[in-house]
Amino acid sequence: MILENISGPQDLKKLTIEELHKLADETRTVLLEKISSHGGHSGPNLGMVEMTVALHHVFDSPVDKIIFDVSHQTYIHKMLTGRQKAFMDPKHYDDVSGYTNPKESEHDLFTMGHTSTSLSLASGVLHARDLKNEKSNVVAIIGDGALSGGMAYEGLNTIATLGTNAIIIINDNDQSIAKNPKGGIYTALENLRKTKGQATNNIFKALGYDYHYLEDGNNLEELISLFKEVKDIDHPVVLHIYTEKGKGFKPAEENHEKFHAGGPFSLETGEYIKKGAVTSTYNGITSEYLTKKLKEDPLAVVINAGTPGIVFNRKLREQIGSQFIDVGIAEEQAVTMTTGLAKNGAKPVWAVLSTFLQRTYDQLSHDMALNNQAGVVLVYSASINSMNDESHLGFFDIPFLSHIPNFVYLAPTNKEEHLAMLEWAINQNEHPVAIRVPVGSVIETGEEDETDYSILNKNKVEKFGEQVAIFGVGNFYNLAEKVSEQLKLEHNIEATLVNPRFLTGLDKELLNSLEDNHKLVVTVEDGIVEGGYGQTVASYLGNTELKVQNYGINKKFYDRYNVEELMEENGLTVDNMVKNIIENL
Amino acid sequence: MILENISGPQDLKKLTIEELHKLADETRTVLLEKISSHGGHSGPNLGMVEMTVALHHVFDSPVDKIIFDVSHQTYIHKMLTGRQKAFMDPKHYDDVSGYTNPKESEHDLFTMGHTSTSLSLASGVLHARDLKNEKSNVVAIIGDGALSGGMAYEGLNTIATLGTNAIIIINDNDQSIAKNPKGGIYTALENLRKTKGQATNNIFKALGYDYHYLEDGNNLEELISLFKEVKDIDHPVVLHIYTEKGKGFKPAEENHEKFHAGGPFSLETGEYIKKGAVTSTYNGITSEYLTKKLKEDPLAVVINAGTPGIVFNRKLREQIGSQFIDVGIAEEQAVTMTTGLAKNGAKPVWAVLSTFLQRTYDQLSHDMALNNQAGVVLVYSASINSMNDESHLGFFDIPFLSHIPNFVYLAPTNKEEHLAMLEWAINQNEHPVAIRVPVGSVIETGEEDETDYSILNKNKVEKFGEQVAIFGVGNFYNLAEKVSEQLKLEHNIEATLVNPRFLTGLDKELLNSLEDNHKLVVTVEDGIVEGGYGQTVASYLGNTELKVQNYGINKKFYDRYNVEELMEENGLTVDNMVKNIIENL
Repeated sequence: MILENISGPQDLKKLTIEELHKLADETRTVLLEKISSHGGHSGPNLGMVEMTVALHHVFDSPVDKIIFDVSHQTYIHKMLTGRQKAFMDPKHYDDVSGYTNPKESEHDLFTMGHTSTSLSLASGVLHARDLKNEKSNVVAIIGDGALSGGMAYEGLNTIATLGTNAIIIINDNDQSIAKNPKGGIYTALENLRKTKGQATNNIFKALGYDYHYLEDGNNLEELISLFKEVKDIDHPVVLHIYTEKGKGFKPAEENHEKFHAGGPFSLETGEYIKKGAVTSTYNGITSEYLTKKLKEDPLAVVINAGTPGIVFNRKLREQIGSQFIDVGIAEEQAVTMTTGLAKNGAKPVWAVLSTFLQRTYDQLSHDMALNNQAGVVLVYSASINSMNDESHLGFFDIPFLSHIPNFVYLAPTNKEEHLAMLEWAINQNEHPVAIRVPVGSVIETGEEDETDYSILNKNKVEKFGEQVAIFGVGNFYNLAEKVSEQLKLEHNIEATLVNPRFLTGLDKELLNSLEDNHKLVVTVEDGIVEGGYGQTVASYLGNTELKVQNYGINKKFYDRYNVEELMEENGLTVDNMVKNIIENL
Repeated sequence: MILENISGPQDLKKLTIEELHKLADETRTVLLEKISSHGGHSGPNLGMVEMTVALHHVFDSPVDKIIFDVSHQTYIHKMLTGRQKAFMDPKHYDDVSGYTNPKESEHDLFTMGHTSTSLSLASGVLHARDLKNEKSNVVAIIGDGALSGGMAYEGLNTIATLGTNAIIIINDNDQSIAKNPKGGIYTALENLRKTKGQATNNIFKALGYDYHYLEDGNNLEELISLFKEVKDIDHPVVLHIYTEKGKGFKPAEENHEKFHAGGPFSLETGEYIKKGAVTSTYNGITSEYLTKKLKEDPLAVVINAGTPGIVFNRKLREQIGSQFIDVGIAEEQAVTMTTGLAKNGAKPVWAVLSTFLQRTYDQLSHDMALNNQAGVVLVYSASINSMNDESHLGFFDIPFLSHIPNFVYLAPTNKEEHLAMLEWAINQNEHPVAIRVPVGSVIETGEEDETDYSILNKNKVEKFGEQVAIFGVGNFYNLAEKVSEQLKLEHNIEATLVNPRFLTGLDKELLNSLEDNHKLVVTVEDGIVEGGYGQTVASYLGNTELKVQNYGINKKFYDRYNVEELMEENGLTVDNMVKNIIENL
């Protein structure tokens, strides 16, 4: 195998075109073998095989800087920059992350996993190059889906303004994670594809760019020739390259959304290998609820920004029609559109992963909260028990969302509570409301929750006790419950157990009442401690005789962590909490 | 005067074209009289006189929805919707805000002051209209400067995708607050202006829009005719209208940046009326420092997003050249470009107003902090003592910035400290660093600050005492000092006085040592309490015998508040704090 002997990009320079072809085929085979058994991003990488080989054949990384948007399409890049073992040897599959990572290689410039940032990064890298009077190529590779993000457009503007060497590759496979919507930038790209780059009204030319179109983005010879043509160019250029997502694996070519990422799957049939019985999940419960709600209420509408699969599958989305809007990978647009929808009498629900919610702090604050519009934000995967790549962490939401005025942020702890909160949030017209969609095994109480959530900040006391009061927030309510059980069992202490439900305000009446027969208040939340819910409790009780212990994880970018270890490191075990409580009573 | 008899848009319908001309002239005169004596946004409003008259003559607000981007160009709109008294009668000048405000009028849809949000809001408003099967026009007016924001582009994409009635007016005066940069969208607009809308490669047409160009955007007849032509259109249309910023007031026509906003000024000479002697300010000190730094170090570079005047005046910017970058009103681009600059060896400093910093939470976290790039963020106007419009508040920064991992956020309390922090931050290569540029009268200690700020989270104990320790954060250090003085004077208590300097971490050694001879820790910060610095202290000390009192303001969107009253309401007076301290010792 040629691939085995590639120690870095320099080894690609001397290969003949036949050898390069062979290398491309090898990487594709290796890629499919790893992803089919291990999982990962299939479609984006399959489409990038030839382009990546051509890039490293023509450009001189790391002198030339290659920046991949989102960087989930860099598996081939990793194979060609000394990391092929992590793809060829199952024992080493976990040696590399699924994204670029400067700790792994000097050929990876940035750690990233959020979309549409590559052009802005490139603008900085190239301007630093110019300030230093150095010569090198700065190459940014961005997908058509990522081009829907406003940051990409801002980056295009700045790079055009700077006017020096910048090679922007639009890796156009006519697909985001899901099928792109029609209109706007997607129409602009479609017209260019249809006319092989000749359309009048070329958006890139309008922005001042030199522009090349390549019809067959999986043709190695043509890619090499194009890259050689623009190498060392003295001004910004856009290379619009049409690639096939999932190229070389028929099931992936035929179903782009299914094979964006996932696995393991069968290489023969393309069927995903199921891991045991499918059980009910909070996400599933949420989707069922929303499907029903949209049918009942023609003014209810679900908004999403480029990850529609978290709410509805493709078939459902088609049935739903105009009551579902995918705005592309444009989270800010999603929030502010939600605000406009609420203002004009619709009942909008924005579904978003916590890690991407943080892209919209200002829209949540200045647009939605300042205007006090009753949109609903469903925050998915806001938990330590979720995506664990450092670029996709979802447990910073309480610190940034819960201190925005006017917002009501709810943390349900079971199915019935979640459904009751959803129903209240969508039907009320008083507040912007966010709901932290629970993560973990579904808990059913069996009794409908009839709470009136319009009475804000009213905590639910599950059990009145004494000495110690434990506040179990959302997903970690169970942990609090277990602590209270062990306190009873081992120390005969009847702790007070509280489900706060509201993250955006305190139940002051309850907190005031605790002084009578409690010594200690413990809070435990599924997120970072700093700026979290517990600290607001500690502050409120700071001037009383009550002691307070706040549990959560310390602020840090954790990468591919083991949940159990992380919990232990942060003292989040029943034994440790019980021990600390007893020591302080 | 016709204006006196206008009770709302319906009164404009029946006016003849001559009367409409007269009305436009009257509003311009009234506008100039108010702004010249009271201050406000001059340029943006002078340019919008005829357009606003035409809008309300043709469209039927509030059935038709008119949404103004930023909404600082709505003075004429306010005059024509029943609020003329607030412009004509000096006693009522303060009755209206400088932005749209639904509390003032049903003709104002949203409260807003941040840029580039109008199209996203419009997309929601119009989709709600369509879900309700109603008929009306949705009109969004956005400036050329605001078009540089990525959100505007995201809004354009969604509106194009929806495909129904939307009238987007590009109010192009070839100017942001400052002169627009060249390249990108500015070039696209320039080419359209130069060709009277006929340029090949029309970005709006590329995005699928119907497009009209109007050369004389201050021509009332042509405006009316164009608006009539597109009223009730069944698909999205862009009206690209060339207006003159500052129209009708010669000094403003000749100096757009100077007359973007400000005042009072002389109507005869156009000179701003100076309010007493110019004294040294922290912003001025910062600019002087940066000017010098850029000269000394060719790799130092200042980035700004559309508010360059906060750092350098126009003349200085021209002298500085490529070491100053204005990316347009594109804050996300600014942060992530800063990250790229640092990565490739430059020394970038991003200067931003606190209220706009919040537009970049994800870029600060996922781009700059996760990649741990040593860019510097200078946070201006982060204080209760700054802009007091509810859309421009700058005191939420500690909660959203200080809990991002890896970031070092510094709060200087005097000139020497500020300069030492600046120097350290720019020259180090270990951390992303933000500095809260002080607000208030400049305090000089007269002694150079030789602190090594690379020793993170080391607080400065200004005075060791006992019983109570007061932590005075940044701008409110003085308040803490006064409290300690009064404690001594009135109660003979020698309080410990601490200047924490670091907002992103605690001096645990110091905090641990306080238990020995203190009973109470008091924190006071110039921002909201929730999620703030003080709460991290309260949490850390929660499990000790020390009591904690956190001072700051309660989270809320305060509007055009009186600072003294706000401080008093939140207990931020020396008397109150001393009283509470004494009660709890």
